Amino acid sequence: MKVILVYDISIEEPRDQNRLNKVRQVVRKYINHVQKSVFEGELSPSKLERLKNEVLRVVDKRRDSVIIYILEDGAFYERQILTDTPDPTDNII
Amino acid sequence: MKVILVYDISIEEPRDQNRLNKVRQVVRKYINHVQKSVFEGELSPSKLERLKNEVLRVVDKRRDSVIIYILEDGAFYERQILTDTPDPTDNII
Repeated sequence: MKVILVYDISIEEPRDQNRLNKVRQVVRKYINHVQKSVFEGELSPSKLERLKNEVLRVVDKRRDSVIIYILEDGAFYERQILTDTPDPTDNII
Repeated sequence: MKVILVYDISIEEPRDQNRLNKVRQVVRKYINHVQKSVFEGELSPSKLERLKNEVLRVVDKRRDSVIIYILEDGAFYERQILTDTPDPTDNII
């Protein structure tokens, strides 16, 4: 399944930066980091469940926002990059 | 078509904030602002073209990153919110 994860981690105090680092590290283990708060990649259903459980252990559910878009295998979608900045997924086989 | 737009606007000087505000205003005219740098909504092909052209007139193509995911009408996808923060698209008919 194609997975796109986007998050807004609420940074109001210095220790919130620590939580942001943890969430980023967790998600990076599973899918590619394509923008500051955007990740995308291919995951099996079981890996997606593990990603969600790990994220839920580190986020602040009241203050942070995490949205996941899941596209079934074979679902047709287009991905367009409007700008000239390098595509972080270019070097991924 | 379901459209998800994500951006990273490079903020290195005070005037970059002005460009960020402009890009945000442009995208908000077309689709919903669901996280700081994430927008989503339904668009016709012609409106998507107009959105892209307007965005291209205000972004810095060398320094900013704008990615658009486009799902054909009827493409099956799931949208999951992992956290308890309110869903900005809840009050949209």
